[in-house]
Amino acid sequence: MSSRADPSVDPSMLSRADPEGAVAAAAKRCSNWGRWGADDVRGTMNFLTPAKRVEAAALVRRGVSFSLSQSFDANGPQKGWRRRTNPVHTMLDTGTDAAAGVQGFPHGIGGADDVIAMPLQCSTQWDGLGHIFDHGYAWNGRRAADVVTSLGDGFTGIETVADVITGRGVLLDFGDLPDGFAITESHLVATAARQGVAIGRGDIVLVRTGQLARARRDGWGDYAGGPAPGLSFTTADWLYSTEIAAIATDTWGFEVRPNEFDDAFQPLHQVAIPHIGLFLGEMWDLDALAADCADDGVYEFWLTAAPLPITGAVGSPVNPIAVK
Amino acid sequence: MSSRADPSVDPSMLSRADPEGAVAAAAKRCSNWGRWGADDVRGTMNFLTPAKRVEAAALVRRGVSFSLSQSFDANGPQKGWRRRTNPVHTMLDTGTDAAAGVQGFPHGIGGADDVIAMPLQCSTQWDGLGHIFDHGYAWNGRRAADVVTSLGDGFTGIETVADVITGRGVLLDFGDLPDGFAITESHLVATAARQGVAIGRGDIVLVRTGQLARARRDGWGDYAGGPAPGLSFTTADWLYSTEIAAIATDTWGFEVRPNEFDDAFQPLHQVAIPHIGLFLGEMWDLDALAADCADDGVYEFWLTAAPLPITGAVGSPVNPIAVK
Amino acid sequence: MSSRADPSVDPSMLSRADPEGAVAAAAKRCSNWGRWGADDVRGTMNFLTPAKRVEAAALVRRGVSFSLSQSFDANGPQKGWRRRTNPVHTMLDTGTDAAAGVQGFPHGIGGADDVIAMPLQCSTQWDGLGHIFDHGYAWNGRRAADVVTSLGDGFTGIETVADVITGRGVLLDFGDLPDGFAITESHLVATAARQGVAIGRGDIVLVRTGQLARARRDGWGDYAGGPAPGLSFTTADWLYSTEIAAIATDTWGFEVRPNEFDDAFQPLHQVAIPHIGLFLGEMWDLDALAADCADDGVYEFWLTAAPLPITGAVGSPVNPIAVK
Amino acid sequence: MSSRADPSVDPSMLSRADPEGAVAAAAKRCSNWGRWGADDVRGTMNFLTPAKRVEAAALVRRGVSFSLSQSFDANGPQKGWRRRTNPVHTMLDTGTDAAAGVQGFPHGIGGADDVIAMPLQCSTQWDGLGHIFDHGYAWNGRRAADVVTSLGDGFTGIETVADVITGRGVLLDFGDLPDGFAITESHLVATAARQGVAIGRGDIVLVRTGQLARARRDGWGDYAGGPAPGLSFTTADWLYSTEIAAIATDTWGFEVRPNEFDDAFQPLHQVAIPHIGLFLGEMWDLDALAADCADDGVYEFWLTAAPLPITGAVGSPVNPIAVK
Repeated sequence: MSSRADPSVDPSMLSRADPEGAVAAAAKRCSNWGRWGADDVRGTMNFLTPAKRVEAAALVRRGVSFSLSQSFDANGPQKGWRRRTNPVHTMLDTGTDAAAGVQGFPHGIGGADDVIAMPLQCSTQWDGLGHIFDHGYAWNGRRAADVVTSLGDGFTGIETVADVITGRGVLLDFGDLPDGFAITESHLVATAARQGVAIGRGDIVLVRTGQLARARRDGWGDYAGGPAPGLSFTTADWLYSTEIAAIATDTWGFEVRPNEFDDAFQPLHQVAIPHIGLFLGEMWDLDALAADCADDGVYEFWLTAAPLPITGAVGSPVNPIAVK
Repeated sequence: MSSRADPSVDPSMLSRADPEGAVAAAAKRCSNWGRWGADDVRGTMNFLTPAKRVEAAALVRRGVSFSLSQSFDANGPQKGWRRRTNPVHTMLDTGTDAAAGVQGFPHGIGGADDVIAMPLQCSTQWDGLGHIFDHGYAWNGRRAADVVTSLGDGFTGIETVADVITGRGVLLDFGDLPDGFAITESHLVATAARQGVAIGRGDIVLVRTGQLARARRDGWGDYAGGPAPGLSFTTADWLYSTEIAAIATDTWGFEVRPNEFDDAFQPLHQVAIPHIGLFLGEMWDLDALAADCADDGVYEFWLTAAPLPITGAVGSPVNPIAVK
Repeated sequence: MSSRADPSVDPSMLSRADPEGAVAAAAKRCSNWGRWGADDVRGTMNFLTPAKRVEAAALVRRGVSFSLSQSFDANGPQKGWRRRTNPVHTMLDTGTDAAAGVQGFPHGIGGADDVIAMPLQCSTQWDGLGHIFDHGYAWNGRRAADVVTSLGDGFTGIETVADVITGRGVLLDFGDLPDGFAITESHLVATAARQGVAIGRGDIVLVRTGQLARARRDGWGDYAGGPAPGLSFTTADWLYSTEIAAIATDTWGFEVRPNEFDDAFQPLHQVAIPHIGLFLGEMWDLDALAADCADDGVYEFWLTAAPLPITGAVGSPVNPIAVK
Repeated sequence: MSSRADPSVDPSMLSRADPEGAVAAAAKRCSNWGRWGADDVRGTMNFLTPAKRVEAAALVRRGVSFSLSQSFDANGPQKGWRRRTNPVHTMLDTGTDAAAGVQGFPHGIGGADDVIAMPLQCSTQWDGLGHIFDHGYAWNGRRAADVVTSLGDGFTGIETVADVITGRGVLLDFGDLPDGFAITESHLVATAARQGVAIGRGDIVLVRTGQLARARRDGWGDYAGGPAPGLSFTTADWLYSTEIAAIATDTWGFEVRPNEFDDAFQPLHQVAIPHIGLFLGEMWDLDALAADCADDGVYEFWLTAAPLPITGAVGSPVNPIAVK
């Protein structure tokens, strides 16, 4: 795969020593601030219109459905980094209680109830627009300190997109990329071409790197926070210019790790979320869907990825459902 | 509306004093145990086939989408009954921290993360097949003590239907029923006819009683566990014979409360979940969808209601998305 | 009871309209900033010396012990104000599981385990020095934003006094004060005199207003956050000059509510915690101890009130133990 | 150290192949069932009488106090075994919020609040009497299924000993034992003799193996659930006959691991808790206290180890305080 001599797609033109400059330049080129008005809270979800959904519904051809969610349980990848833990699921009532006759219900009815405690970023999830800031500013130019306090996100809480994330999904399957592999615009374009799909306004793009499949086979290792294949910083312009509604990967952190600067932390996030207003999905399980796409050669589908409308949340666990 | 002289639809033929007998009789008439093999864990979701989905996709006409979920926050209806509380959402990182410069990240990036702790039945949710038992038995004839222990549901955990709940939804809008109103088969049939929809195999039926709209207007009161309109015990046969995949209401408890027996607790659950193997949705917010249906006269739609695949959970919060 | 014509003890000399001025003046008079060095994190706990403990040990005469803690369970007083809830206690393993033989342990052993989720201020508790700020400043003059971030209190976390809160306790029993009753220095002095106890450096003072006993009798009502008897704002100077180590009440909020200003929120806290560096205990159950003190006429005792050393916590649940 | 030819102290007389027989025999020899009446819920805490406390108060000589608690935070030893995690501490309000002026309080007051979610066995803790069962029976002969359901322990919840655990503590410091070292009665007796302390009715015995100090130096490794020095199964008779009130160690599991049978799980627990009715403390931090005892040669002290009275809990976190 080749790449153009354009700073937006050629990592060689980035200064490894200056992530701050690169972020600032990309942010300037790719800003959607004000595009949907000063009050906007939905960012690129504005691209996902009813008309796009009508087109996408035609992609339901065989009626087969796929969950793109990892499981939510104690066996997940989290190891405590940024105090993220795996979910803790406990029971309020059980079948053993019911069988022991200790529940106090009449006429033989028994019941079980349960409770979950978990970081919203523990497993398959959406990053909301309040998840990442750039120099103290959040999506659409709001001050981060005004947006996300201990009470949560008072503007762009994930509940603001509760009803909208359903439309056309496109899978770009990269097979099995090694950790540290940076996916560039050229790679994205070539893979889409090879798979026979166009990518455009309002689409939800799914990028499969194969890392989750490896983690399943070899153990979690540093899946949560360690090296991974992922999007190159240089894809910021592609993410912006394609006018996609959202993008998700099968990795912990969406972008390539280590990234393409000497000392940086998730620099592509810093452009994509606060400036483009783009929704990022992480830790999606794309394996079963990818197998089906390989079988039938069709890499587009109807996709619904509805976040739980947790008021003020800066992200949400999600069970995305693809239907072909 | 009239009702037939059939025990299944005529509450006058139930003995108010004998819920146990009524449950046993209905369970016998309506059992799906073994229907999909001894190992089945999906119950009526077996009715929701790919072919049904292909038909349902044609219902996406205008591309408008609706979230059918209440919000998940501290202002919810729970008051502690059965130790169910409203969600507790706390932050691991905030915009105020980012703005104060205390996060320790390089090049101006800042972030926010969060955590949720909540009962899985606290807001809009699915009852899984391990949620209710009859005399110590769970769906498909398994012993409750074998199915749901403190480790959760080892057979019918909600993750077993993570990929399947997407297809045709039908709304039956009853407007504004008073608490204690028992919706019978006659009511269901008449309302479907009036709204011009047929109900059959594999459908997900949504029943709007208007109680949530009242609670929004007047305050929660006893929405969680108090009197409510809902399905009559006598609809068990209709729930069974229509071969629907699932049914959901805008009330806390799906069935009418107080119920139609002198001393009983959720008797229709006791038939529907362990014997029919039916998935019940509760506390769904059907108001915006209902307003749209009243507008365009179309009461059917594409519906995706994907539970979070919390391993071993006996239910799940859900953000159902309807598209018309 | 009379009060002196001193602003510190005469509420009539406070301007009801100027809480900010009153707080500033009291803060200036009562500041302990720098008293124990710029690095100090223990505030008035510095008064509780080994020598004081040796004296206090002589108060163990009959060997009877009292827990001064309310229970920690779902039946507590919290109603969600400031998102404080009652504790949620769930089981990881149960006796019903053990009896059902589903635990998988050898040789007949079975076990039960459990989990708690709770605000640290939900029941009987200590306020740590990071709990309250004055105009952005915390104890000893540190900037609040430097002290307590989303990661917790990096300086004065409750773990810093994990080993120290054991010494002489003194009970001042006011019997049954009405809500809104402001306990002044005069009241404190007179009650101590009547009960035959002196109060001085390093003591832990317990003030029983009777409100908890009323709540037990009549229901919680607005115990958590509503009107209550409590310390007058004017006692700031007494709290300072007596050099006590800590003070606790049987009320939710320590100080009188409504307070003595037209529009103010917990103004005595604003002086006591960040300026005096004083540890405040709230929601202590002093009833059994008070009954014993009334019986034997002895209002002093050995007291241990050890916070859980939750790293970075701004308070802690506590089970204080008095021994007479 | 030598050991007598007594089954109670000579592991060589145990059949490694028959833990069930050994447990049954020890349970028979060491049972306290019925000793304090059929309704008793306090077990060996009945030995800790007011008279014992009066004697113990004389041990407060220098007034120095020690916390025997590990910290409660994300850096603890838990790795998920039995779904035990380290504590998750999150903030409801912060100093950064206060400094940013987003809290909405008047007159410059600001505040911070916090929340904890944790297994009750995650760090320094007491095992309550409902923590372990023998063949479906709990302390005092109650059926485990009657005692501990999903609602918690309805009989011997830790709140039943909320007021009592304060009295004489004795430290037996073994220095630095290797993992797998079984401490026998002979070792206990010899160490007590060497340290100049007698052990008897109502005492709280602290056994320091040195494992925690090693874990601090070398990393947690398998501290939670792996090999460890600890009490030999053969000490059951000593635990019983000394009539101590409680015993605690600096290890995860109190008894030696691997234990002295071919295939067994915590067999000494199975005798000590349900049959002797003995309270076991685990993961106590005895290092600072031990250093002081080595300094002054005094291995006895006043000890208060008050559990949080979490209603129905089968254990509790605790911050034990020793005063010498």
